[in-house]
Formats: sequence, C-alpha cells, structure tokens
Amino acid sequence: MFSSTDTIWVLIASALVFFMQAGFAMVETGFTRAKNAGNIIMKNLMDFSLGSLFYWIIGFGLMFGADAAGLIGLPDFFTANSYDSSIPTYAFLIFQTVFCATAATIVSGAMAERTKFISYAIYTVIISALIYPVSGHWIWGGGWLSELGFHDFAGSTAVHMVGGVAALIGASMLGPRIGKYGKDGTPKAIPGHSLTLGALGVFILWFGWFGFNPGSSLSATGDDSILSVAGIFVTTNLAASAGAAAAMLITWIRYRKPDVSVTLNGALGGLVAITAGCDVVSASGAVLTGIIAGFIVVFGIEFIDKKLKIDDPVGAVSVHGLAGAAGTVLVGIFSIQDGLLYGGGIRLLGIQFLGVGAVGLWVAVTMTIVFSIIKRAIGLRVTKEEEIAGLDIHEHGLSSSYADFMPVVYGTSITHSHLAEVPIEKAVTVEHAGTIPASTGGIKMTKLEIITNPVKYELLKEALTSIGITGMTVTNVMGCGMQKGGTEFYRGLPVEMTLLPKVRIEVVVCKVPVEKVVEAAKKALYTGRIGDGKIFIYDVENVIKIRTGEEGFDALQDD
Amino acid sequence: MFSSTDTIWVLIASALVFFMQAGFAMVETGFTRAKNAGNIIMKNLMDFSLGSLFYWIIGFGLMFGADAAGLIGLPDFFTANSYDSSIPTYAFLIFQTVFCATAATIVSGAMAERTKFISYAIYTVIISALIYPVSGHWIWGGGWLSELGFHDFAGSTAVHMVGGVAALIGASMLGPRIGKYGKDGTPKAIPGHSLTLGALGVFILWFGWFGFNPGSSLSATGDDSILSVAGIFVTTNLAASAGAAAAMLITWIRYRKPDVSVTLNGALGGLVAITAGCDVVSASGAVLTGIIAGFIVVFGIEFIDKKLKIDDPVGAVSVHGLAGAAGTVLVGIFSIQDGLLYGGGIRLLGIQFLGVGAVGLWVAVTMTIVFSIIKRAIGLRVTKEEEIAGLDIHEHGLSSSYADFMPVVYGTSITHSHLAEVPIEKAVTVEHAGTIPASTGGIKMTKLEIITNPVKYELLKEALTSIGITGMTVTNVMGCGMQKGGTEFYRGLPVEMTLLPKVRIEVVVCKVPVEKVVEAAKKALYTGRIGDGKIFIYDVENVIKIRTGEEGFDALQDD
Amino acid sequence: MFSSTDTIWVLIASALVFFMQAGFAMVETGFTRAKNAGNIIMKNLMDFSLGSLFYWIIGFGLMFGADAAGLIGLPDFFTANSYDSSIPTYAFLIFQTVFCATAATIVSGAMAERTKFISYAIYTVIISALIYPVSGHWIWGGGWLSELGFHDFAGSTAVHMVGGVAALIGASMLGPRIGKYGKDGTPKAIPGHSLTLGALGVFILWFGWFGFNPGSSLSATGDDSILSVAGIFVTTNLAASAGAAAAMLITWIRYRKPDVSVTLNGALGGLVAITAGCDVVSASGAVLTGIIAGFIVVFGIEFIDKKLKIDDPVGAVSVHGLAGAAGTVLVGIFSIQDGLLYGGGIRLLGIQFLGVGAVGLWVAVTMTIVFSIIKRAIGLRVTKEEEIAGLDIHEHGLSSSYADFMPVVYGTSITHSHLAEVPIEKAVTVEHAGTIPASTGGIKMTKLEIITNPVKYELLKEALTSIGITGMTVTNVMGCGMQKGGTEFYRGLPVEMTLLPKVRIEVVVCKVPVEKVVEAAKKALYTGRIGDGKIFIYDVENVIKIRTGEEGFDALQDD
Repeated sequence: MFSSTDTIWVLIASALVFFMQAGFAMVETGFTRAKNAGNIIMKNLMDFSLGSLFYWIIGFGLMFGADAAGLIGLPDFFTANSYDSSIPTYAFLIFQTVFCATAATIVSGAMAERTKFISYAIYTVIISALIYPVSGHWIWGGGWLSELGFHDFAGSTAVHMVGGVAALIGASMLGPRIGKYGKDGTPKAIPGHSLTLGALGVFILWFGWFGFNPGSSLSATGDDSILSVAGIFVTTNLAASAGAAAAMLITWIRYRKPDVSVTLNGALGGLVAITAGCDVVSASGAVLTGIIAGFIVVFGIEFIDKKLKIDDPVGAVSVHGLAGAAGTVLVGIFSIQDGLLYGGGIRLLGIQFLGVGAVGLWVAVTMTIVFSIIKRAIGLRVTKEEEIAGLDIHEHGLSSSYADFMPVVYGTSITHSHLAEVPIEKAVTVEHAGTIPASTGGIKMTKLEIITNPVKYELLKEALTSIGITGMTVTNVMGCGMQKGGTEFYRGLPVEMTLLPKVRIEVVVCKVPVEKVVEAAKKALYTGRIGDGKIFIYDVENVIKIRTGEEGFDALQDD
Repeated sequence: MFSSTDTIWVLIASALVFFMQAGFAMVETGFTRAKNAGNIIMKNLMDFSLGSLFYWIIGFGLMFGADAAGLIGLPDFFTANSYDSSIPTYAFLIFQTVFCATAATIVSGAMAERTKFISYAIYTVIISALIYPVSGHWIWGGGWLSELGFHDFAGSTAVHMVGGVAALIGASMLGPRIGKYGKDGTPKAIPGHSLTLGALGVFILWFGWFGFNPGSSLSATGDDSILSVAGIFVTTNLAASAGAAAAMLITWIRYRKPDVSVTLNGALGGLVAITAGCDVVSASGAVLTGIIAGFIVVFGIEFIDKKLKIDDPVGAVSVHGLAGAAGTVLVGIFSIQDGLLYGGGIRLLGIQFLGVGAVGLWVAVTMTIVFSIIKRAIGLRVTKEEEIAGLDIHEHGLSSSYADFMPVVYGTSITHSHLAEVPIEKAVTVEHAGTIPASTGGIKMTKLEIITNPVKYELLKEALTSIGITGMTVTNVMGCGMQKGGTEFYRGLPVEMTLLPKVRIEVVVCKVPVEKVVEAAKKALYTGRIGDGKIFIYDVENVIKIRTGEEGFDALQDD
Repeated sequence: MFSSTDTIWVLIASALVFFMQAGFAMVETGFTRAKNAGNIIMKNLMDFSLGSLFYWIIGFGLMFGADAAGLIGLPDFFTANSYDSSIPTYAFLIFQTVFCATAATIVSGAMAERTKFISYAIYTVIISALIYPVSGHWIWGGGWLSELGFHDFAGSTAVHMVGGVAALIGASMLGPRIGKYGKDGTPKAIPGHSLTLGALGVFILWFGWFGFNPGSSLSATGDDSILSVAGIFVTTNLAASAGAAAAMLITWIRYRKPDVSVTLNGALGGLVAITAGCDVVSASGAVLTGIIAGFIVVFGIEFIDKKLKIDDPVGAVSVHGLAGAAGTVLVGIFSIQDGLLYGGGIRLLGIQFLGVGAVGLWVAVTMTIVFSIIKRAIGLRVTKEEEIAGLDIHEHGLSSSYADFMPVVYGTSITHSHLAEVPIEKAVTVEHAGTIPASTGGIKMTKLEIITNPVKYELLKEALTSIGITGMTVTNVMGCGMQKGGTEFYRGLPVEMTLLPKVRIEVVVCKVPVEKVVEAAKKALYTGRIGDGKIFIYDVENVIKIRTGEEGFDALQDD
C-alpha cells in the first residue's frame, strides 16, 4: 500500500528538479559568449538525455542495488528490481534520475566554450553511469559513509560537490579559454552574452531547489515529515537570501559597486551549502550557512581565477564544489541534533570532513583518469581556430544562435602565439605603385579602410599599435564576395552564407606613411587563403579634433 | 465527497500544462525571426485567452456533455452542469481547458511569419469551440472511439495530432514564406532569431509534460493510480531522452554534425509520441517509442520541407502531427496490456489506426473548410510588403520587439516575382553629368555607396551581381531624413521614428563603369516613393588585396 | 496533528509564488532598456533576498503576532512563536514571505531606469519589515479590517495595491526618465529592449498565480476547500483571459492595431483584479472582473502617462494599483455570498471601499515619508549622466548585460536642458585652414564624418538640423583610442574597455558650407574632455537621388 501524498510529493519535486536543467542551461549560456550558445544548450540537453538513459540502464543499480561491502551496489540493469517503499520504485527512480543529471550538468559550465562536444558526451555517460552512482551509494545507498552517520540530506556533497570536483578537474585539464589570461598571466574578464538569461536561470534554479531539498524527505506524511519539509522550505530560502546578500555586500566593498553576476552566484552558493543540512539546522543556522557560502563563492571565484589560474567561465567550481564542501562540513557545526554548537561534540564534524574528503578524492581520481583517456583517445579541446570562431559553427554547423543579430567584435586580447599563423615571409611584397602616395611629410592625409575576417581583428590592432597608430574606428559589416565556405546545415537545409561577417577597421594617417600601414596590415592578416581581406585607400581633405580644435596633422596626434 | 489528493494532483498538473504555453511561445518565437516576435507572442497569448473563454462557453459541453450517438456532446453553455467525480467539475474543466489550448497553439508555429492576426484569432476560436471538442468527445467524452477501446491516454492524437493536422492544412493553404523556396523549388534555411529562447521553451515544455501525462490519470489515490503516475513519469522522461538522443545521432550522421534545433525537436517528438501510451508501455517500450519518434521528426521535417514543399517554420507538423500519429499507432504494438508484441493480437493496432485516420480526416476536412472561408472572407495572409517588413510593425504597430538592438539585414534570397515592383521604365534616366567619371579604362577607381531601404537589399544584390560586381560590403545603418512614415503606437504613445533602419552597400569599381552601376542600382531600387535612397560616389586612391598583394585594377578582380 | 495535503498544497503554492519573482524580473527588464537590465535584475533579486530576511526577522510578527488594538501585531523577532494550524508555522511563514516579496518587487518596475540602487535597497527593507506587515495585519492578521468583514482573499489590496501605491509615490517623487516628456509635456514612447522576455515574464506570472490565489485557501482538505480551490483555478484563469481579450480589443479600436505589450498588461490586470474575490465570484463574475480590469489597465496607463505625467515604465501603478483597488471593490458587487448583485446590499461594498481607501492612505502616507527621508539623506535618483549612460555601468560596473551585442543609438529626444553642457564659449575657434574647402557655391560636395560619444548624438542631431542639414546616416561603431575610462570589474576582474562604443554621423553637404557644419558640430559636442570626438572631411564626386534621378546639388535638397 503506497502513500498517495508521499508519491505526488516526490513526483512534483522530481518535476521541479528536472526544471533546474533549464536553469543550468540559461545560467551557463547567459554567462558565456553568443558564439557558443547553441553548444551549451546542446550539452545541457544531452547530459540530461543521455544521463536519464544510462542511469536507468546501469547507474541506479550501482547506487541503490544490494550493497557490496559498503562500496557499491550490485548492478540491476534497466532497474528491474523493486525498490518500493511508501512510494513506488519508479517514483524513486525518476527522483534519483533528475538528481544524477544535476551532478552531470554542473560540469558543462566550467568546461564551456572550448570542449569538444563528443568528448563531453562521453564524459556525461561515464559520470551518470558510474562515478556519481558509486559515491552516491556510499552516502545514500547504504554504503560506508551512511553507515558512519555522514549527513548529506539532499546532496551538497553527493550531487553538487561531485559535480564541482569533476568541473575542477575538467577545467584544469582543458586549460583556459584563449584570451582568458594575458601573457603575464593576468586574468581577463570575458563577460557573458546575456545577463538576463543568466538571471532567469538563477531564479529557475532557486525555484527548482524547492523540489530538490524538501523532496529529498521522500515523504510528506506524519508530523515529523510535515514539520521537516516545511522547515526545509524556510532554511533553503533563508540560506539563498543570505548568500545573495553577503555576496552583494562583499562585492560592494571590494569592487566599489554591487556586482550583479557574483551576487547571483552568491544566491546559488547559499542554496548549495544549505542542501546538506537543510533538515537539521535552525533558521538562524541557515542564515549563517548562507553568509559563509557568500564569502566562499566570492573569494573562491577569485582564488580559482587568479591563484589557481583555472578558467571556470560560470563559477561552477566555487558555487558547487567549494560551497558544497563547506555546507557539508557546516552540518557538523550547525546541526541542532548533534552539531558542535549544539553540544554534539566533534564526532559529526569529523565524519563530515571524512565524507567530503573521501568523495572529493574519489571524483578527482576517477575524473582525472576519465578525462585523460578521452584526451588521449579523441582529444578534449577544439582547435584554436574553432574556439575563436565559436563552437556553434564548428561543432554544430550553426552559423549563429541569434541569426537576426550580429555579435560585435569582441575585445579580448589574443596573444600572437595562440593563433595559427602562416609564415610572414609568405606575405607578398607590394610593388609600391605610384597610386600609393608616399608620405609627403606635408599635410596630405589618407584614410585606410581594412576589411577582413573578425577573427583577425586583435592581431591587426596589435600590428597597427606597434607602428604608432593610436586611433581607429571599428565597424561590424557584412561582406558579400564570391568566396564560399563549407556548407552548413540548419534543420537539414544548407545555409547560404553569402553574407559573411567582416570587420572594417578605419585609420586616418598622415605622420605614419601609408605604405607602412599597408605592410603592417598585410603581415598581420596574410594567410594566403580566400578571405584575407582588402585595403582601400582614400584621400582625406581634413580632420578636426573637437576637444582642442586642432586640424590636419595636429588633430591626429596623441589621441 | 471529493478526494483532496486527486484534486490537488489535477490542479497542479493543470498549472504545469498551462505553463507549456510559455514553452510554445518561446519555441515558436525563438525559431523564427525577430521581426515577427511580437506577433508570435500575441498569437500564443490570445489563443490561450480566447480558447479559455470559448472552451468554457461552448467547447467543454460539446466534448463532455451528454453523448449524442457517439459523435458529439450536447451543448452545456458556460459549463453549468455537474461533472463531479473524485474531483470537482471545475478541477476537471481547468484541466481540459489547458489541454484544449495546447492543441490550438500548436498551429501558430506552423503558420508563423505570414498569417494575418485577425484570421488567426478567428481560427483559434473555432478550433477551441468546435473542432477539438468533437474529436475530443470521440476519444475522451464517451464517443465512438472510446467505445471501441481506442487508447490515447493523454492525447497524442486528441491534442497533438489535432494540432498537427490543423497546422499542416494551415501552412499548406498559406503557402511558404517569401524566400523559403528558390526559383527552382529548393528549400532555403531561415534560421531563427534566438536559439536560447527556443531551447528554454523546449525545457519548459518537457517540464510541463510532467503535468500533461501523469495528470491525465485524473487520480493519484489507490495503488493502481499511484503505480500508474509514477510509471508515467519514467516513460515520459525516457521517451523524451531517447527522442533527443536519436535525433542527435541521425543528424550527426546525415549532416556531419549534431544539429541543435533538430535535436530539440527530437525531444519534443519523443514526448508527443509517448503521450498516447505512457500508461501502458514499459520503460523499454518508451525508449523505443522515443527512438522511432526521433526518426520520424528528422525525416518528417525533411519530407515536409523538401517533398511536400510546405513551409512549417518550427516543425510543428512533424513534431505534433507525425509523431502524434505514430505514437498512437505504436500503442497497438507496445502496450503491455494488449499490444501486438505482448500477445494482444492486431485488434488494438487496428483500432489505433482507425482512430488516427478518423481524427485526421475530421480535422483535415473541417480545417480546410474553416481556412477556406476565412481566406475568402478576410484573407489568411498578410501582403508581401508586410511580410518582408515583419508582422510586428504591420499587424501590431510594434517597431521592434528588441528596440535597443538592430537586427541585421537578413540574407534570404528574394525572387523578383515576390516583390511588388513598379515599372522599371518609370526610373528616371540620368543625364550623365561630367562629375560622373566615365570608365577610363585606366586605373581610376571609384567607390559607390548606396544607402537604401533594407527590404531592397536582395534586389540590389542581384542587380549588381548581374552586371559583374562580385564584392560588396554591407552595413546596417540608420538614416535620419525628413521622411515620415505612418505613426505607430507603443503602449498608446506615438513612437517617433526619426531614425529609420537603412542598409549601406559599398562597392568599389574600376572595370565596371560607374554609370552602369548607377543604372543597375536605380533600376533595382526605384519605386518613386520617398525612401528609395541615394548613391554617393567617391574617388578611391588605391585598393590592395591582402592575399595576393595585387593592387588597383587587379585587386578588384575575381574576388 | 498536521494535514499532509494542506501542507504540501501550501508549500507547492509557495514555490509557485516564489517563481513569480522570475516573472517580475523578466517583465520589468524586458519592458525597459538594455542599458539598465542588470540593475533591474539586481533590484528584483535583492528585494526578494532582503525581504525574506527582514520579513522573518520582524515583518511576520508585526503582521501575524498577537493583535494590538486591531492595528498591528506584537513583534515576534525571528518568528519564534508558534502559528501552527493544519499546517506548521514554517509552511505558513514561507507562504507569507513570498507574498510580502511580491508587494515589494512591484515597485521596482515603476521606479526603473533612474533610481539609485542603495535607495531602492533601503526602501525594500522598510516595506517588507514594516509597511506591508501593518496593512497586512489589518486584512489578514486579525486587525480591524478583517473584523469588519473586509474580503481580500489573496491580496488584490493587501499585496498588489500596496505595491501599486508605493510604486505611484516612488515614480512620482523620482520624476520621469530623461526623454520621457517633450518640452511641451508630450509623453514619448520608450520601447523596451526585449518583448519576448517581457512576455515570458507574463506567462511565468500567470503560472505563479495558480499558487498565489488557490494557495491562499491554506487548505485543500474537506469538500468546501476542495471546491474552493478548484473554483479559484477557473475564476483566476478566466479573469486573466478576459483581461487580455478586453485589452486587445480596446487597443485594436483605439490604436488601430492590437497592441502586444498592453494586451500582456491586460492579462496581468485581470489576474490582479480577481485576486480579492477569486473564491466568491462565479465564472461569469470573473469574466466581468477581467474585462473591467482590461479597461482600467489601458485607460489607467494612458491617464497616468498623459494626465498625471508620472513615468511608470512598466505600467505597475495601473496593473497592480488601479486594478487591485478595482478588483477589491468589485467583490462588493460580484460576491455570490453577499455582493450587491446577489442581494447582499451595499454593506460589503462599503467595507471594500473603506478598506481600499484606508490601506491606500496608509501606504501613500508612509511611503511619502520613507521616500522623502531617503531622498534627503542619500538621494533617490542617479545623476543625469549616469541615467543616460545606464545604471548597469554606473551602479554595478557592468559594461553591458549583452556583451556580445551592441545596442543601437536610441532615438529618444533629449532636450538640451537635461544635459550638463559646458559653456559654449569654451569651444575653440577654428582657424579655417586652406584645406577646408570654402563653400564654393558650385558643385563641390563634401562628406563630413563625425565620430563621437553616443550620448551626444541627440544634441548633434538638433544642432545639424538647426543649420539646415536634413539628411544624415548614423552608424554604431567602436572607437579604439588611447583614452582610458575608469576601470570596471566583471566578477572581480577588470574589464578592458579598449573598444568604446561610438556613433558615426555622416552628412554630405554642398549648399551648407562645410565650415558651418564643423562649427555646429563643435558647439554641440565640445566638453573639453577626452572623447569629444573627431570630424573627418572627404571630397564627394557625386550624389544621385534614386527617386528623382537628380544629381549633385539637386540630389541633396529636401530629403
């Protein structure tokens, strides 16, 4: 005899946790660049889809099958056995499935914008089928940690830290995105393409967490359960609120202004941290947990970015890994049942530390092996050219996720060494025909208009700067030439790419000889392939600098 | 005495199914162009609003009123009678209302970007008040199909195929969007304006489906119901996952790369297909159903696009029509109660075929009549000019749904015959004044800068290509002239359209005489109305082709 | 002994109402400009976060603590007492928390695009901790209005009108956004930056309302409650549908075309209005309530905009304030228990009026005091310069919420008096060097290309118009000079702003002397600071007007 109330409670919670996939997709795509939006969507869609299939096929059994030595469940292929309690097996299966997919999807944000899609797809099958179920068995499946009394109610460690550690290993093995670190190792900001979608994602995640945490009671019948789920709503919400408030205040002090995206991360950090102890902390304990998570997220993002120099585009390692670990440990302090502050001594605290360490080690070791094998077999990372052009076009044949809008040239510094340059000596030397006016030294002013591939913009800028050009105007244009790229498909139909995105750089010179500019541009842009671009040269009658009223030669100096 | 649990189960499911309207709105607008975004929102909003009103007024009674000869329910205006069961009448009404609205809204995607808003509003009232309720009565209201034992648990046929067939008729009678098919009938890709919003819509739909399918049990009490709803969560989720995985693999093989938007459609196809049999198939049956749906969606989209040459911008006919029909038929094979594979013989399979055929015929015939009458009375389709400029501005006076961003010129080929051209002979002949340099045959190079209405871009491009111009640069600019268009309103206030979107096409010529370019441009652009644009002519000192180092005349050849 | 069903009902409703925060965030950001998107997100995030904390700390006690003279609850800091009923205290607390946050967040839309973030943060603490709880106590906490029999089931007055009146006071004290009213007081349309996100927000709000209204029953057990919650689903949905339909028809008649954003507001107005009486009106009464709300929203928006000249960017005062008040009063007419139309006499109607008036007065007076104190102490409004550049950059150091897309120059008229101009006499007089061609009176034509700060575009346009320039081309470009702005941070890292957004204005003149244009541009643009821009002057060989075939001088006249 099943319980109606317990079952619909768990099923509705499952739906809410499923919806967190939309939240992750929006957070991850919003906080990264438009040229990779389709790829991130695809990763989120497929880690859930493949994860659902493989968790059902094998993962669930390894997690909840008959315990073998406290280490692993015995395989139960296609979840054929009965796991009935007050809810039917399949209600339990779907709830566990959406949890598993959450762990898997956390990684995609940290590995965004540079990972091969096929490698990601393989990773996601392995974590869902094997790695998550094993540590999950330790904690929730009757394994050794649960025997010890490790308390991780809804998965600060079992779900979030597992995802966060895998994210750390993945991002670290991939290396940073091109342009993320300067030559001297200084981290650069790479702003995301839609803060509003990112924020929507955070609200969706918060909403979904009202299934994630209270649903983990697996019951809503009997006064204990009823009191528990009501309390979990309050602790979950307060921790998120406190995490956001703390992150806001910290950024306000440190960066002089309250930072929007870090504050959004702070809310998520509070949610992750409270997940382990949401059922055993008081409202005040939840607020403290949230505040601590806010600190951890802000300083964790900085630490990972600046000290470890690991490029985690959405802060997944901080939010899920560090806040997850901290939240789990804090249960040992704030648990009103047996936490340190409530007279429970250090036993629980020790067990919590042990659990965090053991699970962290398990995931770090296995994921290092998994990513190493993938790296060697098929590679983890796309080529530099593909990364610069964007994963949408190269991995999915998607010319743009926003076909009606033209993304701007993105001002990331690209160091020379990152680009596959052809030998400069291949650049054809110009015969300086009479029509290129020599630098007269007089007031002759000339405009050079260079139209080329947007990918080459940064190289060109550096080249022009190095010969003393200090001002230029940059416009996104579309070029329509006879050049044909490879055909891409959209919904099975070839996309006619007759209009290709180009960038137009205009400089007006009089001091710097025109020839020198032409040479510099050619060296920077030459590859010998179609699409290198053209330089147009025009006469300029005059130039006036508005601030000073200077004209001609003078107007072009020092600005 | 009502059941609390059953009632809140159905009500929460109703809320989830309502939310699918947001999913449809995002999918449909994301997969179409920015210039029609407001129109699509308006259609989704109003088909739900008008549908809710008219289903309550008349539709519900025709569907669930006292049965008349198995064909129709007797009218029960304003749903005044009692339909109490373990849940109150109004819980049943709201659940059925959101289902009805789902059928209606499916059509808007297939008819997107070219349908008159008033015609769509009329259609939506008729399908909600009459067409959907009648076939709904056959299946769920005690009509002849339900008497025969037709099994369509949550509406693969009753909801999705009804919408899909109506979509097919509508899209077919409307004809394709301008630019969708080349002169030779080749279909062209018209990418959507926001893949992220489209993907969000898919996640919302998947989430809502956890109300759609399990809620259709109308009960969550008693072990049978509890087992059923838990099982439905699992079958629904596995079919969607399998549909996505199948679509991904198929596109990976066929188009060399895993296609994002088709994979999203694959997930939806899996959801649609499992809807009929979600309560009677095993988990493995659900996976197979999803895989088959994935195939159907991918090849169905191609078939409709390439063979039938019906322009369905979001794939609604494939996803809802074909996958809905297939899913219904598959119940006859995969049902563990009486399917072919489980020893049930072919009886159920036959009934499933019959039901699909009968409902398909009913909808096809009635919708053909309805759309024909609307077409004759007020027209189905906007004018060509309105379609090119976008439905937002013409149907709703909305100058842009994204006022802060400027959509790019969209590179769709527009064949001449589609545009309302004024007679070319009206183009004023130029007196070739001395200031237009004649083609000297020497190295004199000239830049022509043409600033005109973006709508005319394609015509101009063709005209220039036909006289041998092979390279041009296109920029979106804004023109600020004295011309005044009709005043549009935004929230009741006139929008000052002093800055009008223009396109600037720049060509540099030396071989092709300037006069010839001017003549070609004038012929392509002349309408005799304000806004035809201007041509500016400049001297060019030199041109350098970077790839070859060629200058002047040579640099302008063959690229 | 608690009720499982009641508790999960209230908890799920709480989650749905929480999700309305996402709806508000999307509506408010979608209907305003891209340059303030991050700020609006931050306001919505923080009013919920701070509101959750302060409502728990103090607000809840003032609302539901032991009644003191019918006016206020006695403080119960940190909600320590028991408020158990059939649901536990914490289930009741979380439900009331999300309601409180709804009232607070309504205000952010009306005060959008010009309010200091710190002032908004302070306001939100005060309304959550004090103002909302007091009137809430009157209505729901056992205070004098509830004693009188005031009927406000789910908060048309207690939540929405409280928010709407606070919004009115706030927007009024702030004054309109720059550019909202012309010199003669004519209101101008300022279109929002994403209608699709705004529409998504409306769908989310509608979805959330299925928690807001039915959840307010606080029970789903017993036939009375079951019938009530089912009925509330239907009345809520019909009122929203009728509100949308009414708004659509009214705008169709008044503005000739069905307006998308006002129709979306109409749906919200219907939802707000039905909230008070959703449990005591019939389905027909709900439809009438929705229709009336549709009228109120459309004409209310116009009245507030055109007559009161209060700038409410998202229509919050109309939708929440006016429709909330009207919906509350209409209970006195449409209540099937004791409404005027159902023989209940005017007693209830009188009480409803009294309640609306008293609560309106309470909020208006206290909010006036609160905003006045904030205004005096730290100011309510950002500086004009900050407002023009956007709150994202100035309040949050966020260079763009859409880093990959470049917002267009926004065509709002800015009157001179709004900009902090430097004295014109500071503009350096040009020595008219020989290279500036004097107006020859002949056919010499010249192009002037002015590259400057986008903020100065409107001033420049007016200056050029005043000297007879009637045509110009405007392009968004990026300037790359040596100028350095203040460093901004993104996620703790400095953003390199080497590419600054610039606007390029091109005019071609022959009648107007070049010198005059240069002088006009310099007067309009000169500030003496880096970034004033440059003017480039080029020779033009010819100009052809396509419509007439005129060339040279003639082509530049009257267009």
